[in-house]
Amino acid sequence: MILTVTLNTALDITYRVRSLRPHASHRVSEVWERPGGKGLNVARVLAALGHPVTATGFAGGATGVVVRDLLTGISGVRDALVPVSSPTRRTVAVVDGLSGDTTQLNEPGPLITPTEWAGFQETYEKLVAGADAVALCGSLPPGVPVGAYALLIRTARAAGVPVLLDTSGEALRRGVAARPDIVKPNAAELAELTGSHEPLKATQDARRRGAQSVVASLGPQGLVAITPEGRWRATPPRRVHGNPTGAGDSAVAGLLSGLVERLPWPARLARAAVLSAATVLTPVAGEFDRAVYEELLEQVSVTEESSAA
Amino acid sequence: MILTVTLNTALDITYRVRSLRPHASHRVSEVWERPGGKGLNVARVLAALGHPVTATGFAGGATGVVVRDLLTGISGVRDALVPVSSPTRRTVAVVDGLSGDTTQLNEPGPLITPTEWAGFQETYEKLVAGADAVALCGSLPPGVPVGAYALLIRTARAAGVPVLLDTSGEALRRGVAARPDIVKPNAAELAELTGSHEPLKATQDARRRGAQSVVASLGPQGLVAITPEGRWRATPPRRVHGNPTGAGDSAVAGLLSGLVERLPWPARLARAAVLSAATVLTPVAGEFDRAVYEELLEQVSVTEESSAA
Repeated sequence: MILTVTLNTALDITYRVRSLRPHASHRVSEVWERPGGKGLNVARVLAALGHPVTATGFAGGATGVVVRDLLTGISGVRDALVPVSSPTRRTVAVVDGLSGDTTQLNEPGPLITPTEWAGFQETYEKLVAGADAVALCGSLPPGVPVGAYALLIRTARAAGVPVLLDTSGEALRRGVAARPDIVKPNAAELAELTGSHEPLKATQDARRRGAQSVVASLGPQGLVAITPEGRWRATPPRRVHGNPTGAGDSAVAGLLSGLVERLPWPARLARAAVLSAATVLTPVAGEFDRAVYEELLEQVSVTEESSAA
Repeated sequence: MILTVTLNTALDITYRVRSLRPHASHRVSEVWERPGGKGLNVARVLAALGHPVTATGFAGGATGVVVRDLLTGISGVRDALVPVSSPTRRTVAVVDGLSGDTTQLNEPGPLITPTEWAGFQETYEKLVAGADAVALCGSLPPGVPVGAYALLIRTARAAGVPVLLDTSGEALRRGVAARPDIVKPNAAELAELTGSHEPLKATQDARRRGAQSVVASLGPQGLVAITPEGRWRATPPRRVHGNPTGAGDSAVAGLLSGLVERLPWPARLARAAVLSAATVLTPVAGEFDRAVYEELLEQVSVTEESSAA
């Protein structure tokens, strides 16, 4: 079982309107709802790849109930979310029917009490004991200490379970120092962490800060990885156009599924890069185009990078 | 007890953002939720005026649960909403922190099944038997027949309970023909019903279509009423600036509270016009500025209109 942690889960709502005009009134023609937050996207992709997943994190209020209801509809994902008193946040994506563009409104996360945070750590410790790998994903809701991921990484390491971290800002900085097995920053997160905009140099720097392996997701340029076994670059065979939301989450699912299947690094990176690309072709995070995934997997190139780079 | 009917209840959500820019991502700094739909606004104002109110209509899904939870927090309003399987709609008002302007997104209403509509009519008939007056307010959700208000008006009339109708379009046209005691259109609804943009003429025409009394709410120009006892114009003593949302609902509350208190028409109209103005001064529908209400009530002018007008 792979354990995904989403401390700041969300109810992702998508509205379609004819054309969004500020200060006007709009009739919403279509409404979609799905469970959101990066770790829940990772869980959906892992389940689609055939890996049993347990999803933990927080869920509260009426929106938390909806998130849990929607999760039960996803086969292969076990719901181990921890109830909290403050309501799970909503995100609203307003899709303009004319231009296809999206306007995003993100509520603040729920306030987690110290008791709730302590309760979560207990649940997490029990779940980690039965996990083959752990993914720690996304932002921290208010009330959770900024060093939270460092704590959760130490728990996983103490249990001998490999742990991947995908977050940003100070939570990433503190997390990296706790020596996770893998961190997967994107270009912006990497630059924020290291101060460098040169991906290979920044990846190297991120590794020096404590991560055993760093896999940087560089959008259409694919992935760059520096690991104890070598350094590689995985590039999709062709550029795909679409919605990049969730592409990074699919890369995380690719890396973790490859890890628990004991694939060599190049094969893990190939899968992660191709899953990312196949996610760009679908309108929502947490889903991917399986036909494109299988097609591109035959064609993706993974090249070794010289360590002098 | 006054009975308010809100067939298309809503969870009204307000977001504050710094500045709404289409196709950008926004962090919502503040979130408010309140029970919405015109009849629920009327119920809140009636309760604030000291009148016991029973609120019926439909509530479904997770949003329906939140609407009911929020209603229980309003003292003086008894929740008699009828559960349905489809979820209560949300409305999202995005307030721009820089300009103060609001962008509105309205979800479609829930689909009401024929069985649910039949069940509602039974509940309504029982509630009407114990009511001193009935307010039928707002739009019809999908699945409810367009002649719904005509049916509900006939039930109230058969029970000898005075009934006020506040809706628009075809639902208003059909409802007026069922001879409600009062209809309260605004200028746009009146023009749509009668084809006339001259308020007094249109009010007269609306009355000819079946309503016993017509009270037209004309925004800052106050109210025009044609009733079996005479015709009046009620004008607030000074123009107020603010958010007109809910002003019409407060006028309905003013008219109905005056009716059950057996106030003469001029006093009812004075109260309705002043409650409307005092509502414009508050940011949300269903609330009013009590100090301004009491102050303006001393100063409002109600003048008789000649029937030759």
